[in-house]
Amino acid sequence: MQTIKQMMKDHSIKPIWNSSVIGIEKEGLRVKKDGTLATTPHPTTLGSRSFHPYIQTDFSDVQLELITPPLTGAKSINQWLPALHDVTYHSMNDEEWIWPLSMPGSLPEEKDIPIARLEKRADVAYREYLAKVYGKKKQMQSGIHINFEFDTAILNALYENQTDITSKEDFQSAVYMKLARNFLRYRWMLSYLFGASPTAMENFYPSDVAVPEHYARSLRNSHLGYTNDEEVIVSYESLEAYVESIQTLVSSGALSEEREFYSPIRLRGTKQVKDMLNKGIAYVELRNFDLNPFTSFSITEQDLVFVKMFCYLMIWLDEETTAVTSKTGDEKNHLTSVEHPKEVSQFKEEGLALLEEMQQMAVHSGYEKAEAAVAWAKELFEHPEKTLSAQIMDGIEAEGDYIAFGMKLAQQYKQEAMEKPYQLRGFTSLEMSTQLLIHDALQSGITVDVIDEHDQFVKLSYGNHVEYVKNGNMTSKDTYISSLIMANKTVTKKILAENGFHVPGGGEYQTVEEAQNDFWRYQHKAIVVKPKSTNYGIGISIFKNGPTQEDFNQAVKIAFKEDSSVLVEEYIAGTEYRFFVVNDHVPAVLLRTPANVIGNGAATVKELVDEKNQDPLRGTHHRAPLEKIVLGEIEQLMLKEQGYSTESIPEKGTVVYLRENSNISTGGDSIDVTDEMHDSYKELAVKMAEAIEANVTGIDLIIPDLTQPSTIQNPGYTVIEANFNPAMHMHAYVYKGKNRRLTKEILIMLFPELSKTIKGE
Amino acid sequence: MQTIKQMMKDHSIKPIWNSSVIGIEKEGLRVKKDGTLATTPHPTTLGSRSFHPYIQTDFSDVQLELITPPLTGAKSINQWLPALHDVTYHSMNDEEWIWPLSMPGSLPEEKDIPIARLEKRADVAYREYLAKVYGKKKQMQSGIHINFEFDTAILNALYENQTDITSKEDFQSAVYMKLARNFLRYRWMLSYLFGASPTAMENFYPSDVAVPEHYARSLRNSHLGYTNDEEVIVSYESLEAYVESIQTLVSSGALSEEREFYSPIRLRGTKQVKDMLNKGIAYVELRNFDLNPFTSFSITEQDLVFVKMFCYLMIWLDEETTAVTSKTGDEKNHLTSVEHPKEVSQFKEEGLALLEEMQQMAVHSGYEKAEAAVAWAKELFEHPEKTLSAQIMDGIEAEGDYIAFGMKLAQQYKQEAMEKPYQLRGFTSLEMSTQLLIHDALQSGITVDVIDEHDQFVKLSYGNHVEYVKNGNMTSKDTYISSLIMANKTVTKKILAENGFHVPGGGEYQTVEEAQNDFWRYQHKAIVVKPKSTNYGIGISIFKNGPTQEDFNQAVKIAFKEDSSVLVEEYIAGTEYRFFVVNDHVPAVLLRTPANVIGNGAATVKELVDEKNQDPLRGTHHRAPLEKIVLGEIEQLMLKEQGYSTESIPEKGTVVYLRENSNISTGGDSIDVTDEMHDSYKELAVKMAEAIEANVTGIDLIIPDLTQPSTIQNPGYTVIEANFNPAMHMHAYVYKGKNRRLTKEILIMLFPELSKTIKGE
Repeated sequence: MQTIKQMMKDHSIKPIWNSSVIGIEKEGLRVKKDGTLATTPHPTTLGSRSFHPYIQTDFSDVQLELITPPLTGAKSINQWLPALHDVTYHSMNDEEWIWPLSMPGSLPEEKDIPIARLEKRADVAYREYLAKVYGKKKQMQSGIHINFEFDTAILNALYENQTDITSKEDFQSAVYMKLARNFLRYRWMLSYLFGASPTAMENFYPSDVAVPEHYARSLRNSHLGYTNDEEVIVSYESLEAYVESIQTLVSSGALSEEREFYSPIRLRGTKQVKDMLNKGIAYVELRNFDLNPFTSFSITEQDLVFVKMFCYLMIWLDEETTAVTSKTGDEKNHLTSVEHPKEVSQFKEEGLALLEEMQQMAVHSGYEKAEAAVAWAKELFEHPEKTLSAQIMDGIEAEGDYIAFGMKLAQQYKQEAMEKPYQLRGFTSLEMSTQLLIHDALQSGITVDVIDEHDQFVKLSYGNHVEYVKNGNMTSKDTYISSLIMANKTVTKKILAENGFHVPGGGEYQTVEEAQNDFWRYQHKAIVVKPKSTNYGIGISIFKNGPTQEDFNQAVKIAFKEDSSVLVEEYIAGTEYRFFVVNDHVPAVLLRTPANVIGNGAATVKELVDEKNQDPLRGTHHRAPLEKIVLGEIEQLMLKEQGYSTESIPEKGTVVYLRENSNISTGGDSIDVTDEMHDSYKELAVKMAEAIEANVTGIDLIIPDLTQPSTIQNPGYTVIEANFNPAMHMHAYVYKGKNRRLTKEILIMLFPELSKTIKGE
Repeated sequence: MQTIKQMMKDHSIKPIWNSSVIGIEKEGLRVKKDGTLATTPHPTTLGSRSFHPYIQTDFSDVQLELITPPLTGAKSINQWLPALHDVTYHSMNDEEWIWPLSMPGSLPEEKDIPIARLEKRADVAYREYLAKVYGKKKQMQSGIHINFEFDTAILNALYENQTDITSKEDFQSAVYMKLARNFLRYRWMLSYLFGASPTAMENFYPSDVAVPEHYARSLRNSHLGYTNDEEVIVSYESLEAYVESIQTLVSSGALSEEREFYSPIRLRGTKQVKDMLNKGIAYVELRNFDLNPFTSFSITEQDLVFVKMFCYLMIWLDEETTAVTSKTGDEKNHLTSVEHPKEVSQFKEEGLALLEEMQQMAVHSGYEKAEAAVAWAKELFEHPEKTLSAQIMDGIEAEGDYIAFGMKLAQQYKQEAMEKPYQLRGFTSLEMSTQLLIHDALQSGITVDVIDEHDQFVKLSYGNHVEYVKNGNMTSKDTYISSLIMANKTVTKKILAENGFHVPGGGEYQTVEEAQNDFWRYQHKAIVVKPKSTNYGIGISIFKNGPTQEDFNQAVKIAFKEDSSVLVEEYIAGTEYRFFVVNDHVPAVLLRTPANVIGNGAATVKELVDEKNQDPLRGTHHRAPLEKIVLGEIEQLMLKEQGYSTESIPEKGTVVYLRENSNISTGGDSIDVTDEMHDSYKELAVKMAEAIEANVTGIDLIIPDLTQPSTIQNPGYTVIEANFNPAMHMHAYVYKGKNRRLTKEILIMLFPELSKTIKGE
């Protein structure tokens, strides 16, 4: 059989790191400020661990386990791990943090470490067994597991270019077996490069174990770490041998269950190992990675690139012989793990030779990032003081002790997550409303799949129940025609009027002459002349006291420059409010005011603007719930009209408006008035939504006095329009008033069966 | 009180013909080729007369009554009357026509004229009473009733500019009463201008009446016409007097019911006249118009402009005195009606004086069409030989007899309606699918309201059940998200694939490098490289035998010029079929072939194209179900590649393709294969629609052999895309095969309660 290396080269099959599938499982302890374990249960806002696909607990309630889906590219590390961290941080107590190191901080007495309060009795029983056999403290080590799966196209191409193995499944298993054997043989290099558990608190060690005399590279990967008893020996000679040895260990009682086998590499794909004999190995689980404390999410993109390269290298390499296997590997790995971090690796030569092969492969793959990863590893072999373990050592010494070092980082990472609570890191390229929706879905344990990022298209599922969502609020709960009704202002107005709601009077015109001939209808009325499709106020003229014939004619001509249809509408005085209607109720009413500052008798307008812009809720280009106020031409003109300049010092309490329009996008303020608004208007908004057959809509009403009820004699409102894509983020983080989490309302509408979980009840 | 004329002038209130509301009711007899009454019942395809809002019968089953809704502008005449005629013609027997004159053609014996077979016993009883009192033959006269309503804004403006009458309803009634009195006073002018019943067949006249000695202007408006007994005298002095006199006549038995009062002008607005005392008069019904046989729809737009002007003139004029009322008017009207058509009017002087006033009003209104209408009327006073009645006289003499004259026009008008059956006259500015939908809705008696013509937005209602439709197929029966899924090709493909359907393999790329690095995946495969958002095939490269690296790179670069995302997709060989799915079944499957001609061994390609283009189904700019083939650059190139020019003479039976693409829009042929297609594919299409949650969709499948079933081992299809706005007209009128009326399927989906009516069962 041709070597895989040769096959790849001959057939231009590229070991593309970008197309292999990666899933990450990351453990981490919830701790209090002093580094001791949190005493609270798993946060209820994180839904039920009986089905949560992403945020679980491992051995203990305090041991968070964040699980990304299996994904190609860098999505598991760049999207999912950041997002799951954000959701977790946002769901935790103010006074709790996530411990950033593999070896725990301060541990209580063995008996005071709580076992996870899970629903299934068997899950608890298994943990009680582990506590008895290994001790609870050992279970408090945290690490990262990486699920690695080759690109199927590569496996197929390799399969088609050989004739030795006739079954595709057998071939695939053979490739994974080779990966596993070589992985066990060479994993010492990963312990060298990624080892990040150089020490532990004294009370971590069992009484029968000597506390190490010096820092190590990775206690967790040494014999001190999380390993099975010595009698647990599993063969990787073949898949058959692997399955047989595990089954034997379980039936002899050496292992309580298959999952108790703590190998650094597990073969995966079926629930029971024996089923792999038929179905083949689908992927492998790599379990030997310590938490990297120097990065917010415990592993970096470059770390992951290297791991993928390493996996490809393991099949690219020839095998020495099948006889020489994990024994050498285990030994080298232990020796590496207990080396002093700042010492040169005793296997440096072998390491560099491996990296030389990897370099060849990187060149063949054509990816720049692959070559950078190899260079990074080479550098670490030349400079052991740059390894993670050496840096942690330095860090501990700089901070004084292990707890101080860990808590400093823990606080930093939590603060990063809390800074912009309206963002979901990893998904910031999406619109804010979609970010919030995904956040809340992840929190409740709804499975999320972004099926088109550019198009804000998300698939949500819970069990067999699937819902698709676009732009955060476009769903199966609205009809096609309802969205089209709202997209057409004239149609919306006609339908609302026919259903008895109060809309502005007026007419629609197709020609200048037609409109001008109707002048007599409007001559004594307050009116707005506007193009049918308005865009940011262009082409609009407002006459608050009734126009003259000339002014009217002029306004009509201006409007016709923008559109082939022109509307003349009654001008309505009063304040405009946005009613967000979802699922037959109004969970939020918003008032938007134009960009403004309030004088303090000392600061200039410019200074007041700068100060207001400091608010972390204000950003630019729609990346935050509010926009920074810009002192542009329009604002300066507006100031001038009021007798101000940017250098004026407004008197204390004087409100200075910088804009006429109240859009949030031009620096306006958002003020929640849900509780102040008289219920009669909310009921009307719900009925309007019914009339246009909408389940989700943003209805704009002009209301002169929000405290007075709407009555038949005095309706007290005029409806301006209904929006088919109403923004949700502006209600979620308001300038003044109460934040309203509308994305949860959307989720409850879509998944009524989960409403308690979504509400955090 | 200031005169209305003065008020209009002083306050620039314009008597705008365009804003008054007009409804038209037009009667017409169904006849056979020889002008005798049809013997068939009212067509069942026209639904039930128990609720049909538009197409009814009057006295007899053979007397069609087409009823337009009340509308502003010229919509009743330019949209609705043409459309209702088209629907009626398309629903009638091949061997029946609509008699175009007010006076019937050949009538049978009195006893053989059938009374309308209506569901309500009272309706039949009323007609039996009329038959007894007036005779059935008299009921066979047909005419046009015009419902006229002033623009409310004008009435309001007039009301606000006077102080004499304090109640708005009373003021409005006073204005309509003035209109009615002056109308009765001056209506002789309408008989002069619009009289179009100069004669009748001899057996029309009752035995006790002398047959007139010469042609008249309007027998129908003379004492010979459809009038009440002389004792029936109703006062128009005031609304109170009007109501009282009608009530007295009914209680005395002089009238059987209020509706038996055959005045040329009726006051309308409430079911019972007495209720008008409270609610006021809402509109008037003008009943004195004969059918104009020289126009397809029995009345022209200019006729209607004149009528509206005339109504405004009646309130603009001062009244002589209230005492001088209808008596003078009745007399003048009768005298005018029986004048010889070619004689100068004996009231010419009064007529011209009225037109002079009307001219003043026309100038004041600012509408060119109004002035043209006045000029037309003046011309007729100077040239009586140009009046309708005179022209009918000439027509009868030219054709030999009354029946021949009438049938010639009847045939012409029916032929016009049958020429382009895919059009709905009056609504041809709408898309074809919307025209067909409106056609079928009108036919079934569903109320239609085009709420936005430019946006193809239609409101359909039946009783309280309202449905909105855009583009003929976008409805409340589809979800918002389903349309968005279909609008995104990648999302559609992902969902279909996840649901187990066979989609083309491939990948999506955001950069040139990414795509080129994947070349090895495609090197031996038939593929298509295309921009994600394809537009008429721009930027697409097809490699049927697998590309070279250079060609692939080139193709990727070309595609990236068109879009920021590029798809590389498996190329699928086979024939593409469009499956139209609606409401869980597939009523139509279409094959589209590229523009082509078939040689006959004699004609050149150009001649063959010209001949094929003669098909009335072929039009231009999407105004017909098929497009004319154009011999442009692309077609000539395609010919050249096959060794032809436009002057070549292809052998008999040779198919010469003029295009590579099979779009109908570039001259392709549509071939219905619904019955030929194996059912298994139709079942699959329905399941695909379910997967993307669509109720209406056009699914494109590539199928190598439509006669072989799809099986699990051999699916036999690949799904290419799902369209959210699938064309319906192309199935309705196909080049070859059976026409499929999908618009009826849409209506059945929307109104299941009407499915029998819609199916014509």
